[in-house]
Amino acid sequence: MGAVQSFRDMCDSTKNTNVRFSLPAVCVVWQTAMIILFGIFIRYDEESDPHWFEHKKLNNISSDIENDFYFRYPSFQDVHVMIFVGFGFLMTFLKRYSFGGVGFNFLIAAFGLQWALLMQGWFHSLGTDGKITIGIENLINADFCVAGCLIAYGALLGKVSPVQLMVLTLFGITLFAVEEFIILTVIHARDAGGSMVIHTFGGYYGLAISWMLYRPNLDQSSRLQGSVYHSDVFAMIGTLFLWMFWPSFNSAITDHGDGQHRAVINTYLALASTVLTAMAVSSVFQKHGKLDMVHIQNATLAGGVAVGTAAEFMLMPYGALIVGFCCGVLSTLGYIYITPFMEKHMKIQDTCGIHNLHAMPGVIGGIVGAITAAAASESVYGHEGLIKTFDFEEAFKDMVPSKQGGHQAGGLCVALCFGIGGGILVGAILRLPIWGDPADVNCFDDEVYWEVPEDEESIPQILQYNNHMRNKDIADTNFTMEPVGRSRS
Amino acid sequence: MGAVQSFRDMCDSTKNTNVRFSLPAVCVVWQTAMIILFGIFIRYDEESDPHWFEHKKLNNISSDIENDFYFRYPSFQDVHVMIFVGFGFLMTFLKRYSFGGVGFNFLIAAFGLQWALLMQGWFHSLGTDGKITIGIENLINADFCVAGCLIAYGALLGKVSPVQLMVLTLFGITLFAVEEFIILTVIHARDAGGSMVIHTFGGYYGLAISWMLYRPNLDQSSRLQGSVYHSDVFAMIGTLFLWMFWPSFNSAITDHGDGQHRAVINTYLALASTVLTAMAVSSVFQKHGKLDMVHIQNATLAGGVAVGTAAEFMLMPYGALIVGFCCGVLSTLGYIYITPFMEKHMKIQDTCGIHNLHAMPGVIGGIVGAITAAAASESVYGHEGLIKTFDFEEAFKDMVPSKQGGHQAGGLCVALCFGIGGGILVGAILRLPIWGDPADVNCFDDEVYWEVPEDEESIPQILQYNNHMRNKDIADTNFTMEPVGRSRS
Amino acid sequence: MGAVQSFRDMCDSTKNTNVRFSLPAVCVVWQTAMIILFGIFIRYDEESDPHWFEHKKLNNISSDIENDFYFRYPSFQDVHVMIFVGFGFLMTFLKRYSFGGVGFNFLIAAFGLQWALLMQGWFHSLGTDGKITIGIENLINADFCVAGCLIAYGALLGKVSPVQLMVLTLFGITLFAVEEFIILTVIHARDAGGSMVIHTFGGYYGLAISWMLYRPNLDQSSRLQGSVYHSDVFAMIGTLFLWMFWPSFNSAITDHGDGQHRAVINTYLALASTVLTAMAVSSVFQKHGKLDMVHIQNATLAGGVAVGTAAEFMLMPYGALIVGFCCGVLSTLGYIYITPFMEKHMKIQDTCGIHNLHAMPGVIGGIVGAITAAAASESVYGHEGLIKTFDFEEAFKDMVPSKQGGHQAGGLCVALCFGIGGGILVGAILRLPIWGDPADVNCFDDEVYWEVPEDEESIPQILQYNNHMRNKDIADTNFTMEPVGRSRS
Repeated sequence: MGAVQSFRDMCDSTKNTNVRFSLPAVCVVWQTAMIILFGIFIRYDEESDPHWFEHKKLNNISSDIENDFYFRYPSFQDVHVMIFVGFGFLMTFLKRYSFGGVGFNFLIAAFGLQWALLMQGWFHSLGTDGKITIGIENLINADFCVAGCLIAYGALLGKVSPVQLMVLTLFGITLFAVEEFIILTVIHARDAGGSMVIHTFGGYYGLAISWMLYRPNLDQSSRLQGSVYHSDVFAMIGTLFLWMFWPSFNSAITDHGDGQHRAVINTYLALASTVLTAMAVSSVFQKHGKLDMVHIQNATLAGGVAVGTAAEFMLMPYGALIVGFCCGVLSTLGYIYITPFMEKHMKIQDTCGIHNLHAMPGVIGGIVGAITAAAASESVYGHEGLIKTFDFEEAFKDMVPSKQGGHQAGGLCVALCFGIGGGILVGAILRLPIWGDPADVNCFDDEVYWEVPEDEESIPQILQYNNHMRNKDIADTNFTMEPVGRSRS
Repeated sequence: MGAVQSFRDMCDSTKNTNVRFSLPAVCVVWQTAMIILFGIFIRYDEESDPHWFEHKKLNNISSDIENDFYFRYPSFQDVHVMIFVGFGFLMTFLKRYSFGGVGFNFLIAAFGLQWALLMQGWFHSLGTDGKITIGIENLINADFCVAGCLIAYGALLGKVSPVQLMVLTLFGITLFAVEEFIILTVIHARDAGGSMVIHTFGGYYGLAISWMLYRPNLDQSSRLQGSVYHSDVFAMIGTLFLWMFWPSFNSAITDHGDGQHRAVINTYLALASTVLTAMAVSSVFQKHGKLDMVHIQNATLAGGVAVGTAAEFMLMPYGALIVGFCCGVLSTLGYIYITPFMEKHMKIQDTCGIHNLHAMPGVIGGIVGAITAAAASESVYGHEGLIKTFDFEEAFKDMVPSKQGGHQAGGLCVALCFGIGGGILVGAILRLPIWGDPADVNCFDDEVYWEVPEDEESIPQILQYNNHMRNKDIADTNFTMEPVGRSRS
Repeated sequence: MGAVQSFRDMCDSTKNTNVRFSLPAVCVVWQTAMIILFGIFIRYDEESDPHWFEHKKLNNISSDIENDFYFRYPSFQDVHVMIFVGFGFLMTFLKRYSFGGVGFNFLIAAFGLQWALLMQGWFHSLGTDGKITIGIENLINADFCVAGCLIAYGALLGKVSPVQLMVLTLFGITLFAVEEFIILTVIHARDAGGSMVIHTFGGYYGLAISWMLYRPNLDQSSRLQGSVYHSDVFAMIGTLFLWMFWPSFNSAITDHGDGQHRAVINTYLALASTVLTAMAVSSVFQKHGKLDMVHIQNATLAGGVAVGTAAEFMLMPYGALIVGFCCGVLSTLGYIYITPFMEKHMKIQDTCGIHNLHAMPGVIGGIVGAITAAAASESVYGHEGLIKTFDFEEAFKDMVPSKQGGHQAGGLCVALCFGIGGGILVGAILRLPIWGDPADVNCFDDEVYWEVPEDEESIPQILQYNNHMRNKDIADTNFTMEPVGRSRS
């Protein structure tokens, strides 16, 4: 008994969660590196440069409204809301990890988007002068890139330190940019809403890391797993902002005109359909048909993931509804059966259930995309429409839809390989005992990395005190002195 | 005593709130029907079809930016936020019905918008080939149509089952589409922001249903009526998103250019004015001049409703302020006097007070619209402006403003009739004892239809336990085993 | 002892917080004045008037899409969200002042924007016919103007009455409009994102008022200072909506095309950089490296303030990162050192720490703007670009960048003077004992001005009761009768 105890003590003593040196160091070093690299590489593109005036003249552009900014800015802001409020609040559902959910999401997204601008720039926007020029589309792509890492965070929520998250993000963005380059440019797959590039990759990346970081004694913090009433309502803020703005996500970088328009319609319909089947399955599997907030918060979004690749194609409105229908069912079943199964038999602890919300629907999305692409024809798209939608130009001008379908499938495989392989690699790095991750007993607890205010329980006492003070003489009471204002020195 | 008791027991025993069969069945059947009907009827319109390229050439459209998508997409997303976050969070104010407020709102909106695309399509967008073609404007109109049913839900909040809500939505959308066709197309009334079509109809539809479903013993759940501190703050999220995006609501489908521009200005001003008078009346009717969150959450929005019809007309900025001024006063007085009066003497239990926020301001909006239309003149609008604003074209090219005013008033009457008549009809259907509605004692309680997490009270115990664990040897404690992750199997 | 006590009693007895007469009177009188003044002065401009059709023809405008509405409406809605949800929810962090935070923010913003339309109109948009014509840009400017007053409210949060806030707003808007006219028109400084005009002015205006209203015994309400767990999560809603939409804030009124595009990129980058350094400094100054929500909620936004003036200039992407880097550090240090210092030694009680979030970063922004302007050259901007960016036209066509830098510095001084001077003046007015401000012991307490619902503590009792009721015969229980619905009569 004593031996076991001292061994466990030792294990726990290695869990030093003090990040007072490592977190600031990582933040400052990496931010400094960003400044230097941005100074060397990043410039404004011709649409955000004061020479736009001359550019307009040269290219015979009649009005400022044709600046790409006006085609994409509303979608960009919606995507931005999804990244910071959507993902952030979706992760506030745990009873005592809301600060970590929304706060670390904020941290890694803010770092990730800078690194993404560089990585994606080197692969996609590097000019002949060795400079990366950026405009609104690059900002959207950077947000997309970050989404992959935030998805991965979902699997690890509550079990990792902020320093680990920064490392996860650095590697995640790097892997993402390479994978994206291979899928979109080398293989020439289309993936407007990122079913493969973002969701499949991000999902399996997170699951593989979670597998590498398996905690056999995680039940020691089971008292903190699960939600309370208000934290479930907070999570609905995240769910709804993701759900509402998903049409913008899937259409943000599609073709001007009909491309953006069609992607919005398809996504809107797929999501609506998902809500109904997710609710149906949630109800049918509970005693008395009661609905489960876990399913409502997550499975209702699966349709948006699964329609990502095909959103810009001629999926047809009923096709979008069918995709949403199936995903609502499968995703909810995933929460009921697959997540506990993976936990018990596969050593994968998936806090937010990203397998059911991102990984599996992402794969479905890749398959739907491949089928829809293979089935494309000039009779449906028109001659010009087919070329424009699938970008059958330059090196790929001899491409045909059936072959494009194969390329789409190839893209899906690349995303899977990068996700799983990359996750195992990064997971191995994150196992090193230097990152300040919490002990099993302290998982899902904001106390570890945050200054947490006093409990709510003191409120009734305050109110009682309050009423008391109003009714009696206040002069002979001594108050404790405390500095005013938002300082907490 | 025993006889009374057994009678009440019997009544209560008929209240079987188990929706494990009915809810999934309704969701799956109706979603399947949607897929089939969409397959038969719904197609992309020329602006969201890959033939847009040829369409542009044919119609001499110079740039993709003239795709209707770019005129309406930002407004569409704002309206979407109003429907899902605005209405959803406004209904989270009850202390133990936040899940039902935001969750059922989500369910019926997601179903309603699909059915609305079909119903409105049959009336407004049916092509000669028997197909309905949809684009961004149809999505906005579908959201509008759903709003009518969500308003009705406000009157019934906490007292109906999700199955009843699905039935209410199916009939509500159907009635809406017919009513809208009569008002806008047959009578040729204008109603940009839907004061009549949406708010008057939706308001009276909900009130009539509530009257049909009157519960004399609703006081048995009075302990759950009312808010708690945090639920009132949640409801403010709904209020503010409705308030902020109302200019988009009223301008979303008005004419390109000055029409959208003017509708935004009028709505912005009317809403600002309403806030001040709602606060004033709220304060003057309370002891010590304290403000009541019920009024701040609801009455501040009445100006947006009342300016809906006239938002695109030359209401003039001061006119918008006057409308807002009056509605702030009347709506707040409604919460203070009319809602309790209707409850006591008219057997109408209106949980959210939709009479004061939608029904009454909607009627005011219809009247303001009729007056403003009747007062229109070429000197104010210009020759072309008058024709364009009131759509005096084709069959109505001989229309004059004074006559248009009469048509507006006629439209208001139609909205009233459809709301009240439809509500009584649907209310009768919903009285059937087959829908799984809650007993009087269980109203306003999420426990009935939702898996509700453990109470917050356990948090301090968790924290105590937490501190305890940090300070002592953890090895000899036995924890209960529980599956990790978002599964709740 | 008795004498001291009776003196304090007298002081407290002068603190009559009953605003039942004053608040409604102020609201109604001022709203009526607005209606009259709007009737005399405010008209639609040519882009929101039905004569737009003729205006298009006359000015050879080819499409409705070139109406300024489509250039600015998405940004306007984002700014609107920042004003009402961003500022509003950022101020919900106090444990028992969430109603006051979001509610009074709503009140003064709704009043302020009307008065701002008039004040700014008289200075900037007064036509030869004595009418002010308004369009979407005026609405944005009105929201900007209101932001100055909301910033000032941050310093006074919890310590003033709604009537004082209305007075503060009336004078604040007036001072703002004069100051803005001097800085932008007379001095010809550029200030797209309002670092000087909005943040420096608003920050010092609030701090000066707080200094005038110093409360030596504010520690009497120290039990209510600080947050609880959920109120900190609510405040994050405000933080994130401010953070996400700040690019829209800084670009909302910049030049069409490259101007708006560049301002977005610069702001996006500066804010990302700020998050990392704010987190770093927050962690390094706490025991165990724990993060403090006060810093995450506030200091992460400082970069957006500091990049405001230079956002439309050629600050370069790395320049934006540097500005963000410095502001994250300085702002967090401000919360740790400066706010307590000002409280103890300068008699300035700054509830939200606006000095660190607005005043100081605003000054930095003014300096950055002056340097960037002075360093501008034709080689970087191009000939046309330089003229367009700095508006070197008409009376200022002989201006050169170096001189413009001086004008920028001059503008900063004017903002400082108006802020401090105006604050002292208005603070003196607000000291009069007629405004219904709370006693020291009642600060930060919603009870004073709001009907607050029963405490959450009653929920477990409700639940217990609930379960109890389900298990036993309900017939012989007497319930208290209470009106249903949202009425609280």
